[in-house]
Amino acid sequence: MNFTYLSQVEGPEDVKRLSFSQLSELAEEIREYILATVSRTGGHLASNLGVIELTLALHYVFESPKDRIIWDVGHQCYPHKILTGRRDAFPTLRQRGGISGFPKPSESEHDVVETGHASTSLSIGLGLRMGMELLRREGKVVAVIGDGALTGGMALEALNHAGHLKKDLIIVLNDNDMSISPNVGALSYYFSRLSSTSSYQHFREWVDGIIAGIPHYGGRLMDMVERLKAGVKSLVYEQNLFSVLGFEYVGPIDGHRIDRLVQVFQDVREMQRPVVVHVKTRKGKGYPYAEEDPTTYHGVPSFCVDSGEVASSGKVTFTQAFSQALLCEASKDERITAITAAMETGTGLAPFRQAFPDRFYDVGIAEQHAVALAAGLARAGLRPVVALYSTFLQRAIDQVIHDVAIPKLPVVLAIDRAGLVPGDGETHQGIFDVPMLKAVPGMTILMPATADEMHLMLRWALERGGPVALRYPKDVCLPPLSACEEELIPGRGVFLRETGEAHVLLVGAGGHLRELLSAAELLSGEGIPADVYHLRFLKPLDFVHLGKIFSRYRGVYLLEDGVASGGVGETILAAVDVEGVRLVHKGVPDEFPTHATRQELLADYGLDAAHIAELVREGVGGSRRLHSHSA
Amino acid sequence: MNFTYLSQVEGPEDVKRLSFSQLSELAEEIREYILATVSRTGGHLASNLGVIELTLALHYVFESPKDRIIWDVGHQCYPHKILTGRRDAFPTLRQRGGISGFPKPSESEHDVVETGHASTSLSIGLGLRMGMELLRREGKVVAVIGDGALTGGMALEALNHAGHLKKDLIIVLNDNDMSISPNVGALSYYFSRLSSTSSYQHFREWVDGIIAGIPHYGGRLMDMVERLKAGVKSLVYEQNLFSVLGFEYVGPIDGHRIDRLVQVFQDVREMQRPVVVHVKTRKGKGYPYAEEDPTTYHGVPSFCVDSGEVASSGKVTFTQAFSQALLCEASKDERITAITAAMETGTGLAPFRQAFPDRFYDVGIAEQHAVALAAGLARAGLRPVVALYSTFLQRAIDQVIHDVAIPKLPVVLAIDRAGLVPGDGETHQGIFDVPMLKAVPGMTILMPATADEMHLMLRWALERGGPVALRYPKDVCLPPLSACEEELIPGRGVFLRETGEAHVLLVGAGGHLRELLSAAELLSGEGIPADVYHLRFLKPLDFVHLGKIFSRYRGVYLLEDGVASGGVGETILAAVDVEGVRLVHKGVPDEFPTHATRQELLADYGLDAAHIAELVREGVGGSRRLHSHSA
Repeated sequence: MNFTYLSQVEGPEDVKRLSFSQLSELAEEIREYILATVSRTGGHLASNLGVIELTLALHYVFESPKDRIIWDVGHQCYPHKILTGRRDAFPTLRQRGGISGFPKPSESEHDVVETGHASTSLSIGLGLRMGMELLRREGKVVAVIGDGALTGGMALEALNHAGHLKKDLIIVLNDNDMSISPNVGALSYYFSRLSSTSSYQHFREWVDGIIAGIPHYGGRLMDMVERLKAGVKSLVYEQNLFSVLGFEYVGPIDGHRIDRLVQVFQDVREMQRPVVVHVKTRKGKGYPYAEEDPTTYHGVPSFCVDSGEVASSGKVTFTQAFSQALLCEASKDERITAITAAMETGTGLAPFRQAFPDRFYDVGIAEQHAVALAAGLARAGLRPVVALYSTFLQRAIDQVIHDVAIPKLPVVLAIDRAGLVPGDGETHQGIFDVPMLKAVPGMTILMPATADEMHLMLRWALERGGPVALRYPKDVCLPPLSACEEELIPGRGVFLRETGEAHVLLVGAGGHLRELLSAAELLSGEGIPADVYHLRFLKPLDFVHLGKIFSRYRGVYLLEDGVASGGVGETILAAVDVEGVRLVHKGVPDEFPTHATRQELLADYGLDAAHIAELVREGVGGSRRLHSHSA
Repeated sequence: MNFTYLSQVEGPEDVKRLSFSQLSELAEEIREYILATVSRTGGHLASNLGVIELTLALHYVFESPKDRIIWDVGHQCYPHKILTGRRDAFPTLRQRGGISGFPKPSESEHDVVETGHASTSLSIGLGLRMGMELLRREGKVVAVIGDGALTGGMALEALNHAGHLKKDLIIVLNDNDMSISPNVGALSYYFSRLSSTSSYQHFREWVDGIIAGIPHYGGRLMDMVERLKAGVKSLVYEQNLFSVLGFEYVGPIDGHRIDRLVQVFQDVREMQRPVVVHVKTRKGKGYPYAEEDPTTYHGVPSFCVDSGEVASSGKVTFTQAFSQALLCEASKDERITAITAAMETGTGLAPFRQAFPDRFYDVGIAEQHAVALAAGLARAGLRPVVALYSTFLQRAIDQVIHDVAIPKLPVVLAIDRAGLVPGDGETHQGIFDVPMLKAVPGMTILMPATADEMHLMLRWALERGGPVALRYPKDVCLPPLSACEEELIPGRGVFLRETGEAHVLLVGAGGHLRELLSAAELLSGEGIPADVYHLRFLKPLDFVHLGKIFSRYRGVYLLEDGVASGGVGETILAAVDVEGVRLVHKGVPDEFPTHATRQELLADYGLDAAHIAELVREGVGGSRRLHSHSA
């Protein structure tokens, strides 16, 4: 591709040299470049198409890296990356060894902070601002936060604190009326009222008109009318949510007009007070398919630019299996309700919402509220299912403990993207929920391997009464297996492969069993017969039963698609000890997995079929017990 | 004590029979009863003295349990408990087998939900309301939330959602301008402006005066002035934070005037929309010492009613040791900053605030923000120390992972009340932080045993660079021990008792070692010499080193003042295996510990000296490995 302006931009300083009309052309070139790249690599599309002009204006006015620009949530950082030295590396987006799809300080001094989870920018930005002041460092802090991310509790906590401290934090509210799915909540409605000409703007005009129409009389009346006019103006123009919290408020501004954005940012840059700049952008701007359906084009696999057609593997994913199973159960039991936190599409709840709109709640980016709301619904007698990604459930672990587990409420946690997660990198791994949930008294943790088992487990979880977590990776289900259709017995698993002659047992759970089955195939071909056991339950565990099974083998390998420290393998190793049996546990070691495909990550940690087979081959003559966690 | 009215009140229905003046007398009787009881049992005082009239008015108007009254945070439930069948049991408050200091559904049908952690009531209340509607159940839901609890992110998430859904949730904002310590934040300032006669009320009166003063002219002018008057009134009276979010707003109301409260609640009860009733109360109301110093009298041990003098053990607590150590380090290094979330007094940060007001931040009830703010400060080059209770750190575990650990920032987590916690019961146990933190890559976890070791570890943590957690129980320090002054070597501990002849080794960490040392004394007296090893580090662990040490004994007992499932003992058992050595791990089993003293709880779980000694005595001839976690 030949880009007249983009080819000249090596860093933010080059942006400052261009005229407004040149910047507009540069914006179109960036748009074309992102579309061409993401259609091939996959990634976040619609949000990035929406912030190109905003990014240009910010880099035109502010001086990164002296001024610190924080992107919240970070998946809207592509234009920023392209403008800050990563134009040529951009085609390696989200690929192993390539650039990350999120801001990453180790990648560039222009990336201030890892913002994979939403709603963090105001707290971190405020801390940065205060720290720079204490250390007498120059520079402004700009937090660009989506209207969706602003409904996250932490962002509201920070807004409350920042308004109180009166530090000169600059908040750019990127209002596209969407987070991942369309926004819900009173704040969202409020922002639209602030913006729309039909209400707030109209009201302003109406007040202006009235005030202008009041004739000037002399004496006491005039005095009073003037004071009243001043009072009304102050109320209408200055009293809004942000001013109530101690911020200056500027806006709303058209987020695709670079000249206006620049003018406002130049003014705001001189302020010594906290300020909110309210910018209206359009998600998917410039790509008609994405503008029309920004939810589908939020995070995409590769797609065809011309037709807009998104790639699909054709196989049933765990998300789809959950979606279908829930729909089926909900049609039989009207107590079943579903809750998510801005992950309706990602967790497969869209069909549920369509079928049962009254029993579906997308609470926006607000995981804590999602889980506590489920607790309230359960107390009323309903059967709520909360569908979240594992990494975002981390936000609500206190609610799982305090609001669900202590009262033993019948809440089902449907934990999607559990285990190693492709593409998104360190901030999105689903490897920590097992240690957290395993510690919670009374919690049951299940991992289905096939679509039928998903249905079986979901039905069981809904009937059970207490809290149950159902976790599954971002992957396709295993093909149907009769063992996975057997009745569930708490604490016990099933054999997916039992040869009757094997000395080696591979133990795992859920979607990861595909690798264990392949490893067993490989080994059997080499004359090392290996059986495969599917735990099904990560909690509770029937240690006596497991001990009896393990005692039939010489080597037992516990393989875990999750962090080793605190994983279920650790529990089993600590509790089960069988004379003469070598016990080996392998999970993700003490580091944050970076961005790569799921298969690459499994291989990195020795958890794919080839490495598992290798581990078994090496095992002959090895030490009696092995735990991969070196603490 | 002889109480004319209180003696007649067996349940809420008896409240409804009294006149307003009788209710006021009943309020004074309850005040006297609470004061007399709490001065003896210890507990939460100031908050309960402040809500007596409010509680009476709520039970006068609403029909609990058909109407659901949720107390947030729950430590203000004493008047409610006294009025709902627990008057006679009240002297057993917080004692083993007695009534809980928090609402507890298993105790009474009038207790809707366990609210030990703040800010949960709006989410749970909304869920209840929606559930009751779906299931066509009668009854109102009333959430009584403190102004402090309202700054918690989850409460703000719920406010956003509830305002959007327009359900008839009744929120009573109990505004005493204090959470546990005086409130911070723009919201708090805003509430005070809503309430104070000097600003908002004054503005109202000013506007009323102006409007009243405008003469009535005929024709067009009058029309415009009238419209303007209506516009101003609507703005001044209806446009506030809550109305912006979709709520009706009523208030502020004097929370000690039962007649006014009743009138308002009767009106509000008929509304079919979400409403906020803003009630002003005075924390400590009626007890001058508590009114003057509500922070000290927030949660108290026993105290003298007449002098107000609070009991003290005279020994140095871990909190005090931390407080002194931090003060000392901060006086040498001005990069050290301290952050807490409404736990200034409880975490011992008051002296720090006094000494270094510019480097101290109490962010209010906002743990997520506290940790992410620390991440920002650390990125700017500071050395933030975040002091929180273990149970409240659960709210910020995602921020520890995402905002602190991924970028490997030098943030010190000072985790107070780690381990079994006295008095508060299920909702306040500090037993889950180890499994959570142990799973976090790169995290260091330390447990000091003495005051000197606290200082040593804090200094080490501040110098280290990456994230470090320092955890300690609500207990007094061990007396000075020279072993605890040895240099810290990551992964290794020290012997606190090494006889040279023992076959038994007791392994533990931190304040819990007092029990291990006592057990060793007991055993040695019986001819079973036992050594005691202090791990110091829960992470990292030097397994090779530990294995070598363990190999010198016949029995090694890992004793853990925390949950067994996912505890550090599990890691050690999984990783260390020494031929011929019996390894036993004991921690808190899979249940939520109830309210009792710390010593009672340790005994319950076999973790006090007597039970540890008994475990060792039984050990002779027992199985080779034992892990108390039966999953």
